[in-house]
Amino acid sequence: MTSRSLAFIGTGIMGRPMTLNLLKAGYSVAVYNKSKPPLEELGKAGAEVCGSTAEAASKADIIITCLPDSPDVEDVALGPDGILKGAKEGALYIDMSTISPAVSKKVAAALRGKSVRMLDAPVSGGDVGAREGTLSIMVGGEPADFEEAVPVFEAMGKTIVHVGENVGDGGYVKIANQIMVGLHIAAMSEALVLGSKAGVDPEKMMAALSGGLAQSRVLDLRGPNLVRGEFPAGFRIRLHRKDLRLAMEAGADLGVPIPATGQLYQMFTALLTAGRGELDHSGYATLIEDLAGHKVSGGV
Amino acid sequence: MTSRSLAFIGTGIMGRPMTLNLLKAGYSVAVYNKSKPPLEELGKAGAEVCGSTAEAASKADIIITCLPDSPDVEDVALGPDGILKGAKEGALYIDMSTISPAVSKKVAAALRGKSVRMLDAPVSGGDVGAREGTLSIMVGGEPADFEEAVPVFEAMGKTIVHVGENVGDGGYVKIANQIMVGLHIAAMSEALVLGSKAGVDPEKMMAALSGGLAQSRVLDLRGPNLVRGEFPAGFRIRLHRKDLRLAMEAGADLGVPIPATGQLYQMFTALLTAGRGELDHSGYATLIEDLAGHKVSGGV
Repeated sequence: MTSRSLAFIGTGIMGRPMTLNLLKAGYSVAVYNKSKPPLEELGKAGAEVCGSTAEAASKADIIITCLPDSPDVEDVALGPDGILKGAKEGALYIDMSTISPAVSKKVAAALRGKSVRMLDAPVSGGDVGAREGTLSIMVGGEPADFEEAVPVFEAMGKTIVHVGENVGDGGYVKIANQIMVGLHIAAMSEALVLGSKAGVDPEKMMAALSGGLAQSRVLDLRGPNLVRGEFPAGFRIRLHRKDLRLAMEAGADLGVPIPATGQLYQMFTALLTAGRGELDHSGYATLIEDLAGHKVSGGV
Repeated sequence: MTSRSLAFIGTGIMGRPMTLNLLKAGYSVAVYNKSKPPLEELGKAGAEVCGSTAEAASKADIIITCLPDSPDVEDVALGPDGILKGAKEGALYIDMSTISPAVSKKVAAALRGKSVRMLDAPVSGGDVGAREGTLSIMVGGEPADFEEAVPVFEAMGKTIVHVGENVGDGGYVKIANQIMVGLHIAAMSEALVLGSKAGVDPEKMMAALSGGLAQSRVLDLRGPNLVRGEFPAGFRIRLHRKDLRLAMEAGADLGVPIPATGQLYQMFTALLTAGRGELDHSGYATLIEDLAGHKVSGGV
């Protein structure tokens, strides 16, 4: 049990189970969301349902958001009925969305004018991690603010890393994570489709590759999807593509050319166009399989 | 000790220490190589120095080659003074080079006419692995031939995997390995240069990324090279580029488009043009660093 009162804005597929875990940990949580059904459920579970972001923010020492994209965070934080308007002076704002780090910095600067502190704290682990309270949380911001937030993070996640002292650092590490995971999926897809079409048994190939320098957690955990030819999400292609768009923006902003990621983004666009946005991101392999006229799982 | 007599053709940076390990294991080894200095050394160590491939092959139950590229193997195996000419009927030929699997199949077919059996058995682990006898060996060919060769492999390597029953399967898995390792290096390079130029500490970033789905053995073992800004080989860019050329050839032969690998090959060409062919393959990062005007190791 704790005396800190919380607000949670954005109780969708991630925010709803995260809020339930905060309630379970004994926090009082004021909630607001655009669509109403999750609010009713959270009200029954003990949350205080509010009529606006500003109202929820006004009741809290720590305000949390988990929203789809950069414009949503900008609107909820700085818009007319938002956090800037409602938050108490000295409150701490934690954005757990995956958005542009440049927007995180902009929001942090605007809130600083009202003495509202900010952390950016994007997560990985998906809706399963959100439900089970096993999210990985990558946090950027002042060390003292991070320390204050740790007990709250611990109610929602398992691996909590303070990656940097600037707001936005969490976002940059999340983007780096999505670049690597995406390219590891592309690498596995090209390697396994090539070897498999050449006639090598994919499971023997995976065993040989995992034993050496080619090992990746993506190969270990998602490789079996290719062998089965089934790609249940997991983390959806549609969402991974959004994160790669953030990588494109960050690369352009910072002056860092990221050619392999650029091509990967185009391939994710092809997957979306092909109607595969709801597949797990390892479903990237289906694009290489189509181009090669050969399925790793043995079909044609 | 064993009664099998061996021949080893191609006693260069890899073949020389591999032959020394075979001698140490008690085998009698007839050797031949284009350039003479390694032959003198091997002669002193107990090998029987021969004047041609055909002569060395004629003395052996098992003939091994370790050569730079596909045309070298074709020449040594099928050329006028080669294995086809010299080998005893029923001999076993093991090619441990990394070459085109299509060429391996062609050579195997030609040798079959003289009842010479063949395995393709490319290795990974570099010259350090060759010296220490810790190579990973990926073997394609008939199970009985593989079984016959296992004791010989065990004198040179640690991880010995029979990846498929066709000659060439070893080569396809080696190519798949090099695709994955190369793309993992590209992924790490883009992610770390982007995050680092954004101001995130690279070591904290690596720790956060290794803990999740972005983990790769490349990140764990080669990431520290980027942080130090030092790229001692290891496995050279020049050689990795050759293996990516084999991937290009295999993709084209088999009808498997491998777009990410294609771009990677272009970037390795850029590295060679920039005079960096002798750097470790993780030196790929220097290309992204140059383009970004920022070094992960902290310099500019």
